[in-house]
Amino acid sequence: MHIFYLPEATQGYMNLPEEESKHCVRVLRLEAGENILITNGKGHLFDATLIDAHPKKAIVELSAARKGYDYWPFHLHIAIAPTKNIERLEWFLEKATEIGIDEISLFTSYHSERRIVKTERLEKILTAAMKQSVKSRLPKINDVIPFDRFIKSEIKGQKFIAWIDDEVSEQLLDACLPETDCTILIGPEGDFSKEEVNLAIENGYKPISLGKARLRTETAGLASCHIVQLINYLKK
Amino acid sequence: MHIFYLPEATQGYMNLPEEESKHCVRVLRLEAGENILITNGKGHLFDATLIDAHPKKAIVELSAARKGYDYWPFHLHIAIAPTKNIERLEWFLEKATEIGIDEISLFTSYHSERRIVKTERLEKILTAAMKQSVKSRLPKINDVIPFDRFIKSEIKGQKFIAWIDDEVSEQLLDACLPETDCTILIGPEGDFSKEEVNLAIENGYKPISLGKARLRTETAGLASCHIVQLINYLKK
Repeated sequence: MHIFYLPEATQGYMNLPEEESKHCVRVLRLEAGENILITNGKGHLFDATLIDAHPKKAIVELSAARKGYDYWPFHLHIAIAPTKNIERLEWFLEKATEIGIDEISLFTSYHSERRIVKTERLEKILTAAMKQSVKSRLPKINDVIPFDRFIKSEIKGQKFIAWIDDEVSEQLLDACLPETDCTILIGPEGDFSKEEVNLAIENGYKPISLGKARLRTETAGLASCHIVQLINYLKK
Repeated sequence: MHIFYLPEATQGYMNLPEEESKHCVRVLRLEAGENILITNGKGHLFDATLIDAHPKKAIVELSAARKGYDYWPFHLHIAIAPTKNIERLEWFLEKATEIGIDEISLFTSYHSERRIVKTERLEKILTAAMKQSVKSRLPKINDVIPFDRFIKSEIKGQKFIAWIDDEVSEQLLDACLPETDCTILIGPEGDFSKEEVNLAIENGYKPISLGKARLRTETAGLASCHIVQLINYLKK
């Protein structure tokens, strides 16, 4: 079934946004009477019917939202250094949305090769990934800020820094508690500097390992996201 | 440190293959005396020194292989339907190599949109991923065959089929035993047909779920690979 994004979706008759109307009527050529799905990006997925196939202001009728859809009792936040090749970051966003994530922060770090990203484009990728994987939650993405500013911002819950170092033996899989908010820092190609790791530790971040394998930035981001979701499945 | 692939690497003085010599000397401009790493793709990683920076037949001197590097006491085999967009399959191969995988089989299935792939190109991607993630094991990739032929081939160890169905409640995370060979079937976009699932079950494959989230083919492949590696970390 086709799915559309309508941020203010609640119930009853509503208009699809212009871009979604166009996609629905002009691209997919759906006709009045067709059953569709609507996500509001805030955790609600609705069964709906296309009532008026207008190419700019399509009208849909929404039933009650599906209960307990996409619910997880924690806030998963990954702060990651944008990769030199932006496609690798985009890939991470798509896959993390599929696996399940709430918030992504971007920071520049001592070894960062990329310092500028267009958050608007990344938001589009997140929206497409949400629809593609039939998710009801659109992850939030924050603009790039310097690492030291991010690290000093107030963050609740568990705080981890994934750091490639033989001295770090504690695994995220063991350290992370289920049903608890969680923020994980993922470094750039070239990893965090020693000073950055120390700054993170001073600010309450715990160094953890993601396992034996050496992972690229975007793979480390996805692996940590998957581990947190599995822990919550496993330990609850 | 730079890493090169030399399939027959053992010990002492050896020539790098022509392409690796060129990359070492012409592209990276390494000079005699530099420390490098050599992987033989069979589970051995060697510390080595570049002795003669010849652009076609570079000579290297290998020390003893690092002990216990990249060792896992099971054979992880994922059989997957090639994705319509080949880049998604390539991405799976790269990421699975990083996480750790032994063998990949490709099959065409009732809903497969892609029936032809160039295994040679995929082998290059696996080799690049092995080097990039400093792995000593090059995953084996098998040519595409029809699903029913694959399913009837003799395979040892645990056999699972990941199937998107609300009736399947057993999780791979619970069903998979550590330190045991494991083959997992991942269906195409559009999933397996009911007949294919039945054929798999008749041939000893157990239906399992990868969790609550709905995953694309390549994400399901990677998630199952990661789950098996985590189980082996967790339960051993």
